[in-house]
Amino acid sequence: MIVKMNRNATPQTGQAVLNLLKSTTFQIKESYGKETIFGVVNGQIDRIKILLQEYLEQVEIHELTSSYKYTSREFHPSDTLVKVDDVVIGGNDFITMAGPCSIESLDQIMECARIAKAGGAKILRGGAFKPRTSPYAFQGLGEEGLKYMRQASDAYGLKMITEVMDEANLELVCHYTDIIQIGARNMQNFRLLEAIGKTQKPVALKRGISGTIDEWLHAAEYIASQGNLNIIFVERGIRTYETATRNTLDLSAVPIIQKLSHFPIIVDPSHGVGVWEYIPPMAVASVATGASGMIVEIHPTPEQAWSDGPQSLKEDTYLKMMRQVDVMVEAMQKIREIE
Amino acid sequence: MIVKMNRNATPQTGQAVLNLLKSTTFQIKESYGKETIFGVVNGQIDRIKILLQEYLEQVEIHELTSSYKYTSREFHPSDTLVKVDDVVIGGNDFITMAGPCSIESLDQIMECARIAKAGGAKILRGGAFKPRTSPYAFQGLGEEGLKYMRQASDAYGLKMITEVMDEANLELVCHYTDIIQIGARNMQNFRLLEAIGKTQKPVALKRGISGTIDEWLHAAEYIASQGNLNIIFVERGIRTYETATRNTLDLSAVPIIQKLSHFPIIVDPSHGVGVWEYIPPMAVASVATGASGMIVEIHPTPEQAWSDGPQSLKEDTYLKMMRQVDVMVEAMQKIREIE
Amino acid sequence: MIVKMNRNATPQTGQAVLNLLKSTTFQIKESYGKETIFGVVNGQIDRIKILLQEYLEQVEIHELTSSYKYTSREFHPSDTLVKVDDVVIGGNDFITMAGPCSIESLDQIMECARIAKAGGAKILRGGAFKPRTSPYAFQGLGEEGLKYMRQASDAYGLKMITEVMDEANLELVCHYTDIIQIGARNMQNFRLLEAIGKTQKPVALKRGISGTIDEWLHAAEYIASQGNLNIIFVERGIRTYETATRNTLDLSAVPIIQKLSHFPIIVDPSHGVGVWEYIPPMAVASVATGASGMIVEIHPTPEQAWSDGPQSLKEDTYLKMMRQVDVMVEAMQKIREIE
Amino acid sequence: MIVKMNRNATPQTGQAVLNLLKSTTFQIKESYGKETIFGVVNGQIDRIKILLQEYLEQVEIHELTSSYKYTSREFHPSDTLVKVDDVVIGGNDFITMAGPCSIESLDQIMECARIAKAGGAKILRGGAFKPRTSPYAFQGLGEEGLKYMRQASDAYGLKMITEVMDEANLELVCHYTDIIQIGARNMQNFRLLEAIGKTQKPVALKRGISGTIDEWLHAAEYIASQGNLNIIFVERGIRTYETATRNTLDLSAVPIIQKLSHFPIIVDPSHGVGVWEYIPPMAVASVATGASGMIVEIHPTPEQAWSDGPQSLKEDTYLKMMRQVDVMVEAMQKIREIE
Repeated sequence: MIVKMNRNATPQTGQAVLNLLKSTTFQIKESYGKETIFGVVNGQIDRIKILLQEYLEQVEIHELTSSYKYTSREFHPSDTLVKVDDVVIGGNDFITMAGPCSIESLDQIMECARIAKAGGAKILRGGAFKPRTSPYAFQGLGEEGLKYMRQASDAYGLKMITEVMDEANLELVCHYTDIIQIGARNMQNFRLLEAIGKTQKPVALKRGISGTIDEWLHAAEYIASQGNLNIIFVERGIRTYETATRNTLDLSAVPIIQKLSHFPIIVDPSHGVGVWEYIPPMAVASVATGASGMIVEIHPTPEQAWSDGPQSLKEDTYLKMMRQVDVMVEAMQKIREIE
Repeated sequence: MIVKMNRNATPQTGQAVLNLLKSTTFQIKESYGKETIFGVVNGQIDRIKILLQEYLEQVEIHELTSSYKYTSREFHPSDTLVKVDDVVIGGNDFITMAGPCSIESLDQIMECARIAKAGGAKILRGGAFKPRTSPYAFQGLGEEGLKYMRQASDAYGLKMITEVMDEANLELVCHYTDIIQIGARNMQNFRLLEAIGKTQKPVALKRGISGTIDEWLHAAEYIASQGNLNIIFVERGIRTYETATRNTLDLSAVPIIQKLSHFPIIVDPSHGVGVWEYIPPMAVASVATGASGMIVEIHPTPEQAWSDGPQSLKEDTYLKMMRQVDVMVEAMQKIREIE
Repeated sequence: MIVKMNRNATPQTGQAVLNLLKSTTFQIKESYGKETIFGVVNGQIDRIKILLQEYLEQVEIHELTSSYKYTSREFHPSDTLVKVDDVVIGGNDFITMAGPCSIESLDQIMECARIAKAGGAKILRGGAFKPRTSPYAFQGLGEEGLKYMRQASDAYGLKMITEVMDEANLELVCHYTDIIQIGARNMQNFRLLEAIGKTQKPVALKRGISGTIDEWLHAAEYIASQGNLNIIFVERGIRTYETATRNTLDLSAVPIIQKLSHFPIIVDPSHGVGVWEYIPPMAVASVATGASGMIVEIHPTPEQAWSDGPQSLKEDTYLKMMRQVDVMVEAMQKIREIE
Repeated sequence: MIVKMNRNATPQTGQAVLNLLKSTTFQIKESYGKETIFGVVNGQIDRIKILLQEYLEQVEIHELTSSYKYTSREFHPSDTLVKVDDVVIGGNDFITMAGPCSIESLDQIMECARIAKAGGAKILRGGAFKPRTSPYAFQGLGEEGLKYMRQASDAYGLKMITEVMDEANLELVCHYTDIIQIGARNMQNFRLLEAIGKTQKPVALKRGISGTIDEWLHAAEYIASQGNLNIIFVERGIRTYETATRNTLDLSAVPIIQKLSHFPIIVDPSHGVGVWEYIPPMAVASVATGASGMIVEIHPTPEQAWSDGPQSLKEDTYLKMMRQVDVMVEAMQKIREIE
């Protein structure tokens, strides 16, 4: 439910209302802009009305109307910023996450971190637990990989994102990583979403292999309704009949999600197209949609990668792409100022 | 790996080889037909060669070539029969599983069991843990529902199938049910598949919402490679652009799976089309593809169902459909005899 | 618009009304069953009311409500029978059309006609004008092919169906063939549909490569609204992400079209799956959906076919399949009698 | 076939070879860059070898290897520029085509031309012959519409693009328009493509509703193989399961087509997403993919449009979008310079 301050309410009243709300056990999310709105996760309207009884003429209290309540713009009209220390996703900066598909060795992830950093990425990506179509394919290094990745992230001053595949490993993965990734195959693994919802870890929620926008928003709601409001949507392409690309990158998801939800959205052009040479133009286009960032696969020697080689960028391709991205980010700042 | 008896080997030799194989800790799967083949799950070729050293001229020992080894026809050329006491899936009988989408009460599931039985179903279906797009939709009665369903199954002499959504509840669900169902959203929930692979429970593996035949076979392999060879494929329609139906039922999956795998396949016309009036003709067509059975949703009062009302059959529609299915089953026996 | 006889109107009155309607220039379609309905193609309601002024208490006159007026069941509640002399599509018989993808020579089409006939087909299929993805692929023998095919059809007492690709060749093709086929790529070639609508030739309208049921019904309406009511729908599979089959055969289209339209629907399992060995079970399943017939590709030597070899059936496979189809047709008669 | 000048051949030799080639009846396409290549449409290799016999050591003559010969980059490694007087598509400028879905009246198209021009568009779009799902929907004003549109184009100094639906109207449409458009439903109307191939009119070839990249390239080849090398590809979204947008705009088609073909590609974000508010970000993203232009729908009063109202932009939205596009075009120039 939400508590909306009336237009004529003073900032002092707003503060007083906020203080009262914070005195409860409910989680409160503040949104300032044209309107001041306090979102109350799982709040009970009767209890809140009693709590705010002396301010009832300065506020409007009502249930959320969307079926994805806490994920909707209605709950929080201004953009949510997902923060990992000083790295902010959803704000003014375009945040790049780069790294290998799989962590293969300490050397490999160290080298990836060096390259990622050199291009301007703020976050290192890499998989220690890999969902693979075949049970006989490389399944990731597990905890050993997480250790290597933490070491590489710290060495280069990067934050870290990695996938969790099941509830059993959630605590372990959270221990090492800054951001949890939910893979496309798990977008509707509802028990896993709920478990993550009970943490406060930032979580990057990939769109399902054939997930609709509506299902994706509801998947986020499984997390948000448990109290974790640090959600990042990741558009990674959808399954279509076209075989020239691995998936069909649906960049229109960016403005749609931005309209319907307050959570930030980033783009994964690597899985989105699956062919390295088409990734730089799609990365540049991703910036131009207004996305808050992107996540890309790089590898020192893609032809030797243990997984996803064909879509991994070499150092020089990546660095050139990042210079293009920088120009585009600057252009987007001008574009946002156009009235 | 497989051990194939040479054509000239006597039945006695075959029995001797089998006895040796059974003396190991490996799981053995026997296939008799034009050829006698013993599949050895996770067998190590060197150890088996030593074991069978005195029979090396009567056998051929080799690794499996498909990437879904234990799921492939190569491993077991004859059809696998999945048995739940006297109910056999994959054999001569066409097995119907019927019941409500969700268990709603003891009365409701009892009434469903009565109707299911009256139509000739051998197995009662019903959900106690429901995967729902929205976290606010009815999520199932949980263990209470399982108890009701066991009671109803026993009262009417039916076997029971129900969905498990996560590893945490696997033991609980196995305690009550005869067959576990893996839902479409979990076809690639690999950790859950592996956990089920470690049991010997019969498992009905639904095709993913946009699962390819190849991914589906490999999903089965996640189960089979852990030693559980009691797998039933369930075709339940795939996601396409068409909106006249809930999904597009891909009946061609039946002969394809039957060619590539030894595990039986059944059809779910209820989710396949999603509109009750089109379900009877699709059920009849399912029999005609040569499927080993079907799973359908019924409800005493579909318009009051807590979930999937539009695709649930009323008693009279279901009973009429089952009479049609019976005629079709008979016709299929004649068709199988045609040379 | 339609003229519906009231329940209490006598057959004599019905006949009198029909005679009056037939005295106009409008095309009249009669439907007898629970109700007697006369459909009036492009009829003007005011003129018809004046015409029938002395019977206004025995009839109900109104515009059609569906947006595919003359294609809808409302216009003609009973099934439309499309007749080619004594061959009736949409009636009690299951009609098979068989033949090669392309007519290659007189010998080849003669041999195909012999095989088609031997299996019980009533209609010979074959392409003289071929729509091919590449301009450099074999485009068909043109009029020469039509001549060969007519000769073969007549020699074996078969009717003939062949594709027309453009308005320019319509007259030519109509001169030779009994049924015109509109290919999947032309389902929304609206000018071609209108041109065919101005003839009275029976026309088999294939579903578009990604045509929705709704678009398909409206495509038929482009033909019907011009006065040609001899339409046969052909389900031939739709484009999806699955690559194990050439297309995904959507058998649920059969009951849906039968519910929404009075025109008959047949199935093309050859293009529907595209792999010869999966065609017989899908042909059998097609009968079981209640379709009015099927169209299949056969070839004396599929491995040497100039087009569609992989989905063409050899003589023995075809003949065995037809024996199975016969058993299934018989079963369907029993099924239709079940109340 | 192509004639490639050897690296050591002088420009004079190149000119002499070109003069000889031009002396034949074959159409010649010149490509200068790292290499000098002369493409010879439908050229016979034996005749060309005789023709160039005294230069055989300075040239390499060979057949094209792709199955879409004249459309492939191999035939013409440098970009093809499609010219309409001084408006060049495929060169340094980003060309916008804007206008209504349907021409509704002289006033309406005049007003659209004024708006289009004000935003910087060089080309006016508008339909006089409209392919509509239903035969009862507005089908366009026909020749009257073409006259209005020519008048409006001339009044505002714009070029004109409009759709042709059938061969019968091709001459008529060509009489009025500067560029012909082939709609998505006609991408594989092969007879129409061939007819257009016999003209020299610039032609914008929309991707089919579910056209693959490969089919699209071959559709272009139907035009190119007849001698018309003034082809523009138009990405307009593909049909997928997602319903939040009208189609799924596949921006990755831009770099793919640019790699495989020398013909320019532009984007149609209006049909690509189908919802007006998501069109500006997708237009900006289209520029960022490196496309050569775009085609968008505008209308003075979208809510009163006779077709495609929901995806038509109002004047102020369009003008703001075009200011954003201008910033993006400038940024792309910088990006192209990055090494």
